[in-house]
Amino acid sequence: MDFAHTPKMLELQSHLQVFMDRYVIPANVEWHREVEAGRYPLALIDRLKERAKAEGLWNLFLPGLREDEPGKRLSNVEYAPLAEIMGRVPWASEVFNCSAPDTGNMELLHLFASPEQRERWLMPLLEGDIRSCIGITEPDAASSDPTNLQTTIKREGDHYVINGRKWFTSGAAHPNARFVIVMGLSDTRPEAEPHARHSMVIVPLDTPGLRVVRNVPILNHHSPEGHCEVTYKNVRVPVKNLVGEEGRGFALAQARLGPGRVHHCMRTIGQCEVALELMCERALERKTFGRHLADYANIQDWIAQSRIEIEQARLLTMRAAWMMDTAGNKAARNEIAAIKVVAARLQTTVCDRAIQVFGAMGLTPDTPLAFLYTWGRALRFVDGPDEVHLRTIARQEIKKAKENRRTMADFMVPPLI
Amino acid sequence: MDFAHTPKMLELQSHLQVFMDRYVIPANVEWHREVEAGRYPLALIDRLKERAKAEGLWNLFLPGLREDEPGKRLSNVEYAPLAEIMGRVPWASEVFNCSAPDTGNMELLHLFASPEQRERWLMPLLEGDIRSCIGITEPDAASSDPTNLQTTIKREGDHYVINGRKWFTSGAAHPNARFVIVMGLSDTRPEAEPHARHSMVIVPLDTPGLRVVRNVPILNHHSPEGHCEVTYKNVRVPVKNLVGEEGRGFALAQARLGPGRVHHCMRTIGQCEVALELMCERALERKTFGRHLADYANIQDWIAQSRIEIEQARLLTMRAAWMMDTAGNKAARNEIAAIKVVAARLQTTVCDRAIQVFGAMGLTPDTPLAFLYTWGRALRFVDGPDEVHLRTIARQEIKKAKENRRTMADFMVPPLI
Amino acid sequence: MDFAHTPKMLELQSHLQVFMDRYVIPANVEWHREVEAGRYPLALIDRLKERAKAEGLWNLFLPGLREDEPGKRLSNVEYAPLAEIMGRVPWASEVFNCSAPDTGNMELLHLFASPEQRERWLMPLLEGDIRSCIGITEPDAASSDPTNLQTTIKREGDHYVINGRKWFTSGAAHPNARFVIVMGLSDTRPEAEPHARHSMVIVPLDTPGLRVVRNVPILNHHSPEGHCEVTYKNVRVPVKNLVGEEGRGFALAQARLGPGRVHHCMRTIGQCEVALELMCERALERKTFGRHLADYANIQDWIAQSRIEIEQARLLTMRAAWMMDTAGNKAARNEIAAIKVVAARLQTTVCDRAIQVFGAMGLTPDTPLAFLYTWGRALRFVDGPDEVHLRTIARQEIKKAKENRRTMADFMVPPLI
Amino acid sequence: MDFAHTPKMLELQSHLQVFMDRYVIPANVEWHREVEAGRYPLALIDRLKERAKAEGLWNLFLPGLREDEPGKRLSNVEYAPLAEIMGRVPWASEVFNCSAPDTGNMELLHLFASPEQRERWLMPLLEGDIRSCIGITEPDAASSDPTNLQTTIKREGDHYVINGRKWFTSGAAHPNARFVIVMGLSDTRPEAEPHARHSMVIVPLDTPGLRVVRNVPILNHHSPEGHCEVTYKNVRVPVKNLVGEEGRGFALAQARLGPGRVHHCMRTIGQCEVALELMCERALERKTFGRHLADYANIQDWIAQSRIEIEQARLLTMRAAWMMDTAGNKAARNEIAAIKVVAARLQTTVCDRAIQVFGAMGLTPDTPLAFLYTWGRALRFVDGPDEVHLRTIARQEIKKAKENRRTMADFMVPPLI
Repeated sequence: MDFAHTPKMLELQSHLQVFMDRYVIPANVEWHREVEAGRYPLALIDRLKERAKAEGLWNLFLPGLREDEPGKRLSNVEYAPLAEIMGRVPWASEVFNCSAPDTGNMELLHLFASPEQRERWLMPLLEGDIRSCIGITEPDAASSDPTNLQTTIKREGDHYVINGRKWFTSGAAHPNARFVIVMGLSDTRPEAEPHARHSMVIVPLDTPGLRVVRNVPILNHHSPEGHCEVTYKNVRVPVKNLVGEEGRGFALAQARLGPGRVHHCMRTIGQCEVALELMCERALERKTFGRHLADYANIQDWIAQSRIEIEQARLLTMRAAWMMDTAGNKAARNEIAAIKVVAARLQTTVCDRAIQVFGAMGLTPDTPLAFLYTWGRALRFVDGPDEVHLRTIARQEIKKAKENRRTMADFMVPPLI
Repeated sequence: MDFAHTPKMLELQSHLQVFMDRYVIPANVEWHREVEAGRYPLALIDRLKERAKAEGLWNLFLPGLREDEPGKRLSNVEYAPLAEIMGRVPWASEVFNCSAPDTGNMELLHLFASPEQRERWLMPLLEGDIRSCIGITEPDAASSDPTNLQTTIKREGDHYVINGRKWFTSGAAHPNARFVIVMGLSDTRPEAEPHARHSMVIVPLDTPGLRVVRNVPILNHHSPEGHCEVTYKNVRVPVKNLVGEEGRGFALAQARLGPGRVHHCMRTIGQCEVALELMCERALERKTFGRHLADYANIQDWIAQSRIEIEQARLLTMRAAWMMDTAGNKAARNEIAAIKVVAARLQTTVCDRAIQVFGAMGLTPDTPLAFLYTWGRALRFVDGPDEVHLRTIARQEIKKAKENRRTMADFMVPPLI
Repeated sequence: MDFAHTPKMLELQSHLQVFMDRYVIPANVEWHREVEAGRYPLALIDRLKERAKAEGLWNLFLPGLREDEPGKRLSNVEYAPLAEIMGRVPWASEVFNCSAPDTGNMELLHLFASPEQRERWLMPLLEGDIRSCIGITEPDAASSDPTNLQTTIKREGDHYVINGRKWFTSGAAHPNARFVIVMGLSDTRPEAEPHARHSMVIVPLDTPGLRVVRNVPILNHHSPEGHCEVTYKNVRVPVKNLVGEEGRGFALAQARLGPGRVHHCMRTIGQCEVALELMCERALERKTFGRHLADYANIQDWIAQSRIEIEQARLLTMRAAWMMDTAGNKAARNEIAAIKVVAARLQTTVCDRAIQVFGAMGLTPDTPLAFLYTWGRALRFVDGPDEVHLRTIARQEIKKAKENRRTMADFMVPPLI
Repeated sequence: MDFAHTPKMLELQSHLQVFMDRYVIPANVEWHREVEAGRYPLALIDRLKERAKAEGLWNLFLPGLREDEPGKRLSNVEYAPLAEIMGRVPWASEVFNCSAPDTGNMELLHLFASPEQRERWLMPLLEGDIRSCIGITEPDAASSDPTNLQTTIKREGDHYVINGRKWFTSGAAHPNARFVIVMGLSDTRPEAEPHARHSMVIVPLDTPGLRVVRNVPILNHHSPEGHCEVTYKNVRVPVKNLVGEEGRGFALAQARLGPGRVHHCMRTIGQCEVALELMCERALERKTFGRHLADYANIQDWIAQSRIEIEQARLLTMRAAWMMDTAGNKAARNEIAAIKVVAARLQTTVCDRAIQVFGAMGLTPDTPLAFLYTWGRALRFVDGPDEVHLRTIARQEIKKAKENRRTMADFMVPPLI
């Protein structure tokens, strides 16, 4: 066991940190002003993307990039600390072409795209020329159990015809978004195997019948890129837009999710570090009853707890990344479920404490905490609610116990009677 | 001990509930549409106010109304359950002229207004013709320790001159708001007693030098009435605008806060009841893995916990109201501190569970939960952060222990050695 | 609503408190010495019982005492605060003939005993001449679901023959214990209604075949009276020992439990008050890093939280008692479930904090905390685990939601799309 | 970063696991019977020690063993997983000569013993021929702040004279215990530097004036080896019994504690794994309301939470061990503080859940849970209460914030007004 980062990793982290310090963080206020003013898409993002690409800080997230694809070819372990560094500024990942849901789509297409799909959709994504969406979640189906999905993808001759309603289609309000990968029922026969009924198809956003009906605020927060509600009414796409095989939608969704969860978690950890730093700095400047908040033992407990919880979350996430690298995404399934639960809760917990230390200012948009706290709450649904992940982990433990069933025999001490 | 409501209370509750069911709840969607559309102030509010006044559901909150003042003359115990009923719809209290911060201002002026102030400011408030604000909180002073307040109220001849910056001045964006009661330092001598340095003065909102600089969103939520930042630059008001005596600002603030906290808490409890009802109904309609959420033991635990916590919070609040009625607001100081902590935490806890049961829909504005959850978080600062209330309670306990110091003597069992 | 105690209640409380201060608390160390030395039963208990009876502080718990039965005839609301006062000293209730499980047995026999049973078993209990046990819990049946009970009570001619194994039969190690009321299956037909299969019979402890096989320690604590494991091997008792009717065991068990839970909870609250007082006194005497623990904000938070939680638990319990008095034990079912959950958790929470303030001394038998903390943990099983009570409450809420189903209709704000 | 164990580690773990399975676990019931029967010291321990030594599973804990000292010379990272395996059976460490407080004493003497001390005290300890104690904690001093210690160690000619009272002197009731290392004030001048006032001396347990006055039960649990109260009344030892230098007691105590905390934590984790396995197996066998506990979502949540928390605690502990190996014990100070807090809380949390799944049986001595739960509570004091560790961590964070003070500047978004 070795907890040290390799020299390669340390160098990458340092390079990225310098970039962040030099270019990204100084642009943070400008970013907020531009978004408030509705000047979207943001010129500053394009400017920064160009620079990041020039410095080779590009597509850092995709382990198996081909030689002809631009990017770094990092392992998950190598990438994870970079996601943390980027995550400190919630809008920064896009600068390095590492933002969700594009990263998941790139992974998916990288694995399953036809040559034509590759050329038309993947390459522009890898170049950062366009953005994309994923359409899985539906208003009327608990996403913890995706067999409930109701959107249909019906083959008619050379086309698929899509009907349904999706929401939380992130990025659909971004002016550069060009397509959405829609998941839906392609096999509606009652006898079909529940996990083999769904398919994924690429749907250009300008296809007739597709309508972005609204940009849904999340805990009052209007994202400029949008978490959109999208209706599909007889939307027709050619059969060649199918991703992978028909009926394999679930497998694709699974393949897509693992690395993305590591990314989310590491970004969360970066944001929690920011919140903890803010909490400490505010505790040093704010006084009540003649003493700085930093001198109060309850505030100190919050600070220490936050530090401990962040360290534990980071180690768990790094271990999950390492398992994905060494044993594969599937073998890391429980580890990924665990970090998803841990990180989302961490963000609300740490930001809640930070807000309390800030006082009412913590509720205002003058600090990043209001956004981070509410986004942390939302994270408890992103990629599945906590409960479904806990269930996955519990079932694995119970299965182990069923197979073992030795511990009670070994450790009980029957009374002498 | 008798936990029953009197017939008078039951009748009032029933009257109010019928009014809510018949007029207020059916107007809820319209209210949201109007606010979204920015049509503020709302015609529907005026309509409902008129009707409520006609039915005598008016100024329910003020125990000691004079005969010439319109309203019901209810005790705190009688009023509290009504506040809960109104609180279920966050905008409803105004309909009955029972909304903060006007209620607190009416209490204050009722106790301390000069005849002229009474005529000019209190009576229009009691009639519901105008609205008002209170300016205490400042960006640069932890409100847990109000001796830090920096705004100055300086006597110059027949005027007070006010300089400073306040925020979270609720209601200042309401078109009918006419004045703000400002608290500030009137005695800046270093040797002045810290709790006798402050005064309160009435400042009409159109006084030159007073500027509402922004309506501060609270956890991303833009309130139409506003929680505003207000600057005072050489704002001059006549000496007769002083409320009570010079140097008595603290005592006035204390007098003003007690009943208001009971109101806040009971409204919170009403909102938690709504959240719990929503949680149960959603759990009955939503399915995962073949079973309704209502059949899962973890969801059941959340529901039961919520019921228990709500009941406990309500009893504690009713007891505080009863203490105010029977022993006075000052004697109920610790009880009021306790309910403030309990209710604010309750709201985030119960709404957090309800959101989780709803799934991602719980994050959207389609349910009241997103607002209630974030408002619950804000409540942990309204009228002072949890920590200052806990400190108050702890100091009282420690004081009792200091005076008693018998329990260790009575209960320790020294070893036989 | 009136939170005041009646003059009668205040007088009783004062009388009891004086008795406790004068006689019981000064005997506390002696009690521990005697128990450690194994001199059981304790002469001091007999001495104190005599005195309590002489002062009329006797059988305070039983509302419906007949005129020929010794005792006070108090309502549940009148008794509850007395249970709290007695509960401060864990062994004190016996002094006033108010200790479990005798209280429950007296209630049961009071309601259902035949005249002969009344004479032979109830009257000596009411006089405090003997003690008794209840045998429900079994090692191999989750007591959260008593349909699992396996002990059989088989009619053979004029006798019932009992076979089975019970544990946590409290009091069976007390030298004065004379009988146990055993609950078991009297109807083993598979088609029998699950809640009509059980009966209760009185079994003298010296009946052949009944064996107290061990006194089971609870979290390492050896109770002198015992929480015993008892085996029944062809134990024969005459048919007249049946309590109530055959097949009515469940109904009897329910009738017996309600008031007992209020008693338990109020004693718990008394013990939590002791723990809180100890915590405060210790915080005043103990220093680290130059300051008393009482000056640290984290310790203050623990103290304040404890005060708030105790107040809330007491109010909830008093309300449950009031409901039993005014609406009957059955109507108070959910309230009783709620206090059971709240009080048990309260005791571990408050004692845990008190132990932490004491430092390692809190782990020793030199303070009452070690016993109270572990007993608090045990309380989470006494009369059913938390989970079964939460389930009861949740089902009631869900049932209400099913019948109402209006809140979503009333409060949702559908999007304008 | 590499989370894999080396082949050497895996082989050691497998060797130890086989030994545990073959010899230790089968002896567990016998161990309990012998201890209950008071046949102490236990022949079975001697038997197992001999075998473990023969197999080379001996002194696994001490990284820097000299060539002439028996043992394995493992790093902390190599040892930690072995501590977890041993820890599953609370009494097993002694079998491998790895039990506290001997391990700490061996470390201390290994670093600081004079040649004579080495021969007389260290070598017999390393051989497992004798056992030893450490005397730091005092009844009247909060051990979170050891400058409060009051025991004096006064030089008189060629002797030190020791006076004072210590408690929680673990192992002092073990028949093979031969000496205690006592820490006390050797410099009582008021002007002496607080951290340079204390010294440590070796005191044979049979020295006149030393009296083991009682074996203090911990949360009702009587340890056979004892956590003893020991009085020192004019206890004289020769000057050569001084460990290290005079006035260096604190430094010695610090040096001694780091590795011991890693050991404690890893043993805790082993015990939590046992508790989790028991919880799962019990959930598979126990039924309520027609379903196995393992099928209830609340039980599943407890299981999953426990798995997640255990994984996180283990990773944090392994990282602390790795830091000790690579950067030294001092550099790992905050990491060690963190694992101390995490592990102690983990044990009560996981065992609490396991007890609840077991039902009342979880309170009895028939499962290991009652001991593990109460010992977990005690762990929150062993080597310092949680609060002192949290304080250490918080101070470090606050110091970093003081030096950095950039985050607010970087991340705040001042309003446009």
